[in-house]
This record gives sequence, C-alpha cells and structure tokens, in this order.
Amino acid sequence: MSTTTIATAKEVFDLLHDDLRAIEREFGDDAVSSVKAITEISDYLREGGGKRIRPSLLLLSAKSQGYSGGGMVRLGAVVEMVHTATLVHDDIIDAADTRRGRPSANTTWGNSKCVLAGDWLYMQAFRVALEERNFRVLDLLIGLTQQMVEGELLQMETLGRPVTEREYNDLIYRKTACLFEVSMRLGSVLAKVNGKTEASMGEYGHALGLAFQIVDDILDLTASEEVLGKPVASDLREGKATLAVIHSLENGTPTDREAILTVLTDQNFERVTHKEILAILSRNQSVDYAMNIAFRHAERARAALASLPDSDFKRALLWVPDFVVARDK
Amino acid sequence: MSTTTIATAKEVFDLLHDDLRAIEREFGDDAVSSVKAITEISDYLREGGGKRIRPSLLLLSAKSQGYSGGGMVRLGAVVEMVHTATLVHDDIIDAADTRRGRPSANTTWGNSKCVLAGDWLYMQAFRVALEERNFRVLDLLIGLTQQMVEGELLQMETLGRPVTEREYNDLIYRKTACLFEVSMRLGSVLAKVNGKTEASMGEYGHALGLAFQIVDDILDLTASEEVLGKPVASDLREGKATLAVIHSLENGTPTDREAILTVLTDQNFERVTHKEILAILSRNQSVDYAMNIAFRHAERARAALASLPDSDFKRALLWVPDFVVARDK
Repeated sequence: MSTTTIATAKEVFDLLHDDLRAIEREFGDDAVSSVKAITEISDYLREGGGKRIRPSLLLLSAKSQGYSGGGMVRLGAVVEMVHTATLVHDDIIDAADTRRGRPSANTTWGNSKCVLAGDWLYMQAFRVALEERNFRVLDLLIGLTQQMVEGELLQMETLGRPVTEREYNDLIYRKTACLFEVSMRLGSVLAKVNGKTEASMGEYGHALGLAFQIVDDILDLTASEEVLGKPVASDLREGKATLAVIHSLENGTPTDREAILTVLTDQNFERVTHKEILAILSRNQSVDYAMNIAFRHAERARAALASLPDSDFKRALLWVPDFVVARDK
Repeated sequence: MSTTTIATAKEVFDLLHDDLRAIEREFGDDAVSSVKAITEISDYLREGGGKRIRPSLLLLSAKSQGYSGGGMVRLGAVVEMVHTATLVHDDIIDAADTRRGRPSANTTWGNSKCVLAGDWLYMQAFRVALEERNFRVLDLLIGLTQQMVEGELLQMETLGRPVTEREYNDLIYRKTACLFEVSMRLGSVLAKVNGKTEASMGEYGHALGLAFQIVDDILDLTASEEVLGKPVASDLREGKATLAVIHSLENGTPTDREAILTVLTDQNFERVTHKEILAILSRNQSVDYAMNIAFRHAERARAALASLPDSDFKRALLWVPDFVVARDK
C-alpha cells in the first residue's frame, strides 16, 4: 500500500481498526458512573454510533507524526466524549426529537437528566485528559469547549434572521472545525513536534472541518430523507441560514430574498415550500457556490500536509478531504 | 486580636476584606466572554451576591498554613465560579423561579442559554485553575464537579420518596460538603503542606459543610419567609426529605409517617399543612435531633484543626462552625 494512494474508506478503516476498537473500549470504560442514569445515557449515546471522525483524525495525526504510545487511545476517547457532551446539550437547546436516526436522549430521559449527563461527560473527558499530565492538552481542550459553547449561543442569537458569510464561517468554525483542529493538534502534542508543525496540522483540521460542515449543510438542504436518515431542511426549519442560502439571499432577486426570509421567519414551509427554496438555490447556482468553497477548503487541508513525511497515515489524511466533500450523507 | 477568640463575622470579614475584594474583581474579569449573553448572565449571577463562604474558606485555609501568593485569589474565584455554575444548572433542573431573593437566571434568559452559560462557567473555572499549572488543583476540581453533578442526579431519583439518613448524608456531602472540603484542600495545595495536614483541612471542610447543609435544611423547614428571604418548606414542596423529616419518618407514629409521605408525594401542603408537619417534627424532637448532629459535625470540624499553628486565621476557622450552626438564615 505504501506507494499507492489510498482510495477507499475501508483502507483507512483497516489502518485504524485496532486503535478505533481500543478507543471504543476506552470510551465504554470511561463512561461508567456510580450513578445509573449517567451510565445509561452515556451507553445510549455511545452505542448510537456516529462516524468517529474526530478520534480517527487524532489517530492519523499522531501516527503520521511518528507517535505510537497509549495516549492517542485515551485522547481519542476524550475528543469523542467532548463531542458527545456537546450533542447532548445541543439537543436540549434545539428541543431535538431525533439524533442519528434514534430518539434523542432528552426525549427518553428528560432535559434535567441530560443537562447533568452532559456536564458529567465534559468532566469525565477532562478527567481522562488530565491523566496525560500535559498542560497543553488541557489548554487545547478547555479553550475548545468554550469556543463551542459560545458558538452555540451565537447560533441561537442568529435564528430566524439572515447572517453574513463571515458570521456563518465563525459559527461553523466553532461548531465543527474547532474540534477537528484540536483533534489534529492533540496528535502533534503527543508526538512532541515543534509549534510550526502543530500549526500545520491544526490548519488541516480547521480547513477540513469547514469543508465538512459546509457539505453537511448542503446535504441538509438537498438530500432526500431516505438517504440522510433524518428530516431534510432541518436548518431552515430551525431558522438557520447556511452557506447556499446566504448566497441566494445576497445574490438572488428581491423576490428570492423575500421567499427565503419568509421561511427563516416562519420556521416552516407553509407559505413557501422546500421545493421553491431549492428552485431559488438552483437559479442562483448557490449550491455550486457553496460546494466550490468546500472544495477550496478541502484543497487547503491537503496543502497543509506538504511537509509531513510520507506514510500510509499521511496518504489517509490526504484522502479524507476528498471523502468529506464527495459523500452523499 | 492575637490572644483573644474571634467573636464576630465582622472580625473575620476584616481579616479577609482585601482578598475578598480581589476575588470579586477576579471573578468579574474572568466572567467576561465575547458572547454578550454569557457576560450578562455571569454578571447577573455574580452581582446576586451570596455569602462567598467557599472563597473565604479557601483564603483562611491558605493563610492559616502560611501561604501568601496570588493563587488564592485566582482559586477563590474558581471555587465561586464552580459554585455559580452548579446553581445555574440546578435552577434549570428544579425549574426554580427565584434564587437569592431575585428571579433565577433561567426565568430571565430561558433554559437553553442557561445550560450554555453554566457550561461556559465550568470551563472558565477550569481555565483559570489551569493557570496555576498544578495538576493536583485540577484533580481536586474535576473530581469535585463530578461528585456534585452525580449528587444532583441522585437527588432527582429520590424526589417524592423517603430516603435513609445514609442517603441523606451522601446527598449533602455531594451538594455542599464536597466543595467546602475542596476549598480547604486547595488552600493546603497552595501552601504545599504534607498529605496528612491536607487531609485534616479537608476533614474540617467536610464536617463544616455537613453542618452547614443540615442547618440550611432545618431553616428551610422552620424559619419564616421574611427571615429566610425565600419561600419556606421548599424542600418538602419539591418532594425532598431532609434530616429532621427523616427522623420523624423513622421515629414517629404510623400517622406521622403517613402525613409526611402524603406531603412528599403531593409536593404541596393541600392535604397536610406545613403547620401539621411542624407539629409532628416538634412532637418527635426531630429538629433537636438534626441540630444535635449539626453541632457534632461543627465540633468535629474544630477538632480537625488541632495541629494547625496558632494565628488569627486559625481563630477565624475555629469560629466559623459556631457561626454556621447558630445562624437564623
């Protein structure tokens, strides 16, 4: 494999298989509390799956930089726990009914228990991270968590109104790219590389995260419910304008703008249908515009790896941005 | 003052005046976010006051053990931030309308923003604590926070049913005594004393915290609304059995027990009045029983200071347990 390009998700998965299994075990062991409700909620969330993209990035980052210790399994579980904790609290805030195709935890256990289970998962993530006895690890994780929490609050303040592309970029940085960046940087911290190398790995995660979220937001607008496994256009239903929508808002006709603003305000498709919105986006080539930006970020991610020594792990990292922009769900 | 016993709150306050002001400034500076809602909620909570008993304990602990650096101001703000974060999330869970005589934050900003503001305050507390670059400080704080969060969940599971004295002790340890203990231990960590001395200081905080919460719970049952500044018997209205109530449950007549169970189930005083409950407690001498246990904990707290060198700060620490058990609000 070492002289060819990685071409499939399976090859990457094979490369990380044992470590990802170890991370699942670590997460499972970590998420056990003496309080039954916490263990139940944690297990439910953990078993709900998810792509484990953040631990995979951390593993690839650490391994591509020559690290081979046990810290990457612990910290892989940590970034997934932080991610899970944010999902629990976000579902409460969005009053979400489903998550990953199943009832969301708050519909089963109620908001109160989920507030506390989320708190506990944050603390447990920090507790496991603390075992590394590395202040830089904690600096990164705590700074990250604050960025994410602030981002969710900023998001709330934009609901129902148009946002600028600049605001959108800040929101998706906080929502997604920030944790991708930190996952990559943690790999560098474990591998004890210099600051410049860590910054490049962070740049990769940052750009990849932006590409990932832009594509996620496009799929929410354009995919079918069967493919996506969740209700489509949920962002518009929550009053969130994402990149393609912002493009049509800024470049469409006054009538286009009016129609979009109606949906953002109504937070439903009663006066303007989802189909009408898709027609507006199509007429303004707004989905192409957003996809192009995602491609540019993906390219920027790959470029950030220029000085990384060649390895299977580097090839996997080079492949991930393509996968992220080409996926259909 | 050095040869006499400290006798008033004012003397203790004078002793800590400058440091407590510095802690208020630190808390004020720390609780500023680039996100307006967070700063607003933090300011609201900070300005709501509170007794600042946790930072005071930390200061007295550090100073009585010879510490004089800036860490105690930072960590004093940290323990108050952790305390504030737990209050924000607890008020959401209890659906509380008031806190410290004012509307609770969730009634003003809504639950969603308060979930996130609480998260942010926890992270900010850890971020400031991290500046100490001391792993023991972080171990104590993160272990503490998990104990408190688990305690709140355990509390939820007991609502509306009788609990044993053992369960009650565990709940009040997690709710109050644990943070008192950690505040005292943090003073020891700053002063770099040996493990045995730290354990004694922790024992003081632990015992004091139990005494504090037992008295708090008694006042909730027996004080008048004017004196307390909040609705009386709120614990029973929430279905919480506290120490005096537990004593009557276990030692009263079957009729007494029936009446108490009715209130715990109904979570109101419609079928059995507050006055009838007070008569039951009085007939069984249950308030005396609970007060006696509080006195014993207060005595145990004082005894834990036996080997601490004499100083104004030690005298203040010796005075605090008396104050805690003698207060009427």
